[in-house]
Amino acid sequence: MNKIEIIAVGNEIVYGYTLNTNSTWMSAELEKSGIEVCYHTAIRDRQDDINQALNIACSRANIIILCGGLGPTKDDFTKEEVSNYFGLELCYHQQTVDDIKNFFAKRNKIMGESNLKQAYFPKGSTIIPNHNGTAPGCYFEQNNILVALFPGPPRELHPMFQHFIKQCIYDRLEVKCLTEEIRLYGIGESEAANKIDDLLGIFNQVEIAPYIQDGYVTIRLKGYGKTKEEIKTNINTHKSNIIERLQPFVIGEDSRNISELIFDKIKLKGYKISTAESCTGGMLAARIVDNNGASEIFSEGLITYSNEAKTKLIGVKAETLDQFGAVSIEVAKEMAIGVKNTTNSEIGISTTGIAGPTGATADKPVGLVFIGIAINDTSYAYKLNLIGSRQEIRKLSVDHALHLLYKLL
Amino acid sequence: MNKIEIIAVGNEIVYGYTLNTNSTWMSAELEKSGIEVCYHTAIRDRQDDINQALNIACSRANIIILCGGLGPTKDDFTKEEVSNYFGLELCYHQQTVDDIKNFFAKRNKIMGESNLKQAYFPKGSTIIPNHNGTAPGCYFEQNNILVALFPGPPRELHPMFQHFIKQCIYDRLEVKCLTEEIRLYGIGESEAANKIDDLLGIFNQVEIAPYIQDGYVTIRLKGYGKTKEEIKTNINTHKSNIIERLQPFVIGEDSRNISELIFDKIKLKGYKISTAESCTGGMLAARIVDNNGASEIFSEGLITYSNEAKTKLIGVKAETLDQFGAVSIEVAKEMAIGVKNTTNSEIGISTTGIAGPTGATADKPVGLVFIGIAINDTSYAYKLNLIGSRQEIRKLSVDHALHLLYKLL
Repeated sequence: MNKIEIIAVGNEIVYGYTLNTNSTWMSAELEKSGIEVCYHTAIRDRQDDINQALNIACSRANIIILCGGLGPTKDDFTKEEVSNYFGLELCYHQQTVDDIKNFFAKRNKIMGESNLKQAYFPKGSTIIPNHNGTAPGCYFEQNNILVALFPGPPRELHPMFQHFIKQCIYDRLEVKCLTEEIRLYGIGESEAANKIDDLLGIFNQVEIAPYIQDGYVTIRLKGYGKTKEEIKTNINTHKSNIIERLQPFVIGEDSRNISELIFDKIKLKGYKISTAESCTGGMLAARIVDNNGASEIFSEGLITYSNEAKTKLIGVKAETLDQFGAVSIEVAKEMAIGVKNTTNSEIGISTTGIAGPTGATADKPVGLVFIGIAINDTSYAYKLNLIGSRQEIRKLSVDHALHLLYKLL
Repeated sequence: MNKIEIIAVGNEIVYGYTLNTNSTWMSAELEKSGIEVCYHTAIRDRQDDINQALNIACSRANIIILCGGLGPTKDDFTKEEVSNYFGLELCYHQQTVDDIKNFFAKRNKIMGESNLKQAYFPKGSTIIPNHNGTAPGCYFEQNNILVALFPGPPRELHPMFQHFIKQCIYDRLEVKCLTEEIRLYGIGESEAANKIDDLLGIFNQVEIAPYIQDGYVTIRLKGYGKTKEEIKTNINTHKSNIIERLQPFVIGEDSRNISELIFDKIKLKGYKISTAESCTGGMLAARIVDNNGASEIFSEGLITYSNEAKTKLIGVKAETLDQFGAVSIEVAKEMAIGVKNTTNSEIGISTTGIAGPTGATADKPVGLVFIGIAINDTSYAYKLNLIGSRQEIRKLSVDHALHLLYKLL
């Protein structure tokens, strides 16, 4: 069975300047193809550290993917260290020089001297061209270990890595895996786990575990086997069992996110949705516009941050604001109804709350958020007590708003 | 010199379901205190893998921080494996049981049987209380290695980790470090690196390197030394040198992000800003509202996704839309002026573009975005050709819009 290790090389990752999105993304891409990654490592831009990481990886993995340190600058030496470690000399590749020259020519620039080193590769490598940058990747096999090198910028890495999976990795598999998810809303992780406690673990080659993702609980079923059909059959037995027990909380059975699920539902009904946001300040609308083709369900959104804007743009009554305050169930409702009506939509959705860190009062603490939803002639409002930083509270507000809407559609 | 390794335990990380934000965050927190992390490792929820990771970490680090796997469920066994590895028995902690019971009582729930195991800790541990969940952390020293355990949910981890740094880590340092940044806009990484090529590397205990962050280049200067004053003096010599060479591109000399920089500038002028967004659909406003106290500079924002909304809400002329199309320099300008005027603000800023993947035409490709900016009686518009996914193009549009505005203020 193959064991895969991903090594991210870069001070910026280990020091905490940059999220290691590449390792996550590569794992997810491999997982989609039924391939499981075993280890992630991140190390500094140091020759000793690369050597040590290769030593460890060679002792426990047979596919090693390195990412980062292929650039033209002085602190980029992943390729050099890897060649050295495996005792392979670096060979000049004319096609790559031409490609880099072309890359610069298209941008009306001339290739710098420093870029020349990007045209050298460990002897015996297959080169993976980079159409979005100057650092090509490569892979080779040595001592029964497959080693692949990729540049760090995601835009360059992504197409190169997908090409690599297709061309090189997929056929090496003996055992394949498939993952399905059951997404829940309105139940906590331990409560959900309690309800299906006897089903958690590994049974019949299916691993079942709960996860928290974007503020909601997901039950993941990961099956292993020789064929997709065999795995699917195994997963489905468990899946229907779990769905039966957690029925009232199930909001999705595939990996589409809540924004995609809502997009499909609204489109199917032929509705339009509009947004009126206070504390989330545009984040809710942005999540709807995440969908390609958003214009089919969304024409406009209003960010009514001040009281004046709430009254002027969507007709929230001054008396309501005076009597209950901007952060109230009544204002949330009037915002939702107001934006629905002024934009001629079928659905209006609103947020108003105290995201903090300042702005709290004795009876309105940080984290108090109201969500208003108006669908045709009916309106609803929900009170949330959220915990977290300003950014977390705003993000959670949007998640809740989308889930609450989904339940109503 | 201390060597720190962070080990994240969790299938969800290694399989690519969840970004490993915890390791990045902990590194960044340590860095703020002048402490450098050397290694990040992520492994699956498997006993063997935890053992192996501890073996490796003990061979190269003297501070080992583990994160994840402290929950009440069956697949949470980090604490058990760590105790086992270091030959420490698990001891019952009555205070923790009381804390967990209280935690549930406050939420009108009763503690489950499975939570009991969260009250056991390796013998000799100092316990780090968890005020936002049921999994306390702990740390102990064995064989001259400091080992600390933390839960995975960020909201629980963050305050616990900050407490841990203050209480335990900071005093262990012999060498401290400080990091400063010079943030650039309008220049690429290799072009910037070329201009300061002779300054890149490690000189006089200061490490200088360029990074790409959120679409712009940052030069980071990281100094090491015994005292803050010594480090600062060393850094400043290099810093003024770099700023002199890159002057036209410098937009900031500290770690505040562009949204914070703009907030301060606008506040200082006593201006209000309003937004009119098409392709970014609320993301630009959301970045402004990221700032605590946003209401001082921002009252309202409009998401004018459809042509109709552009005309109705901010008075973009129908002829302009007909003649040039919604994605044009003319419409971007009218949007910015329109939203400034209708909201009585001093600044109006707009985005209109083709985020893709569909929607491109022969002369308007995916990634074509226009930014409009109106300040008092003057207006500007900029054309961008961006590359990336729908989400990337939208995010880059916002970054460019904020940087362009900053340059004008």
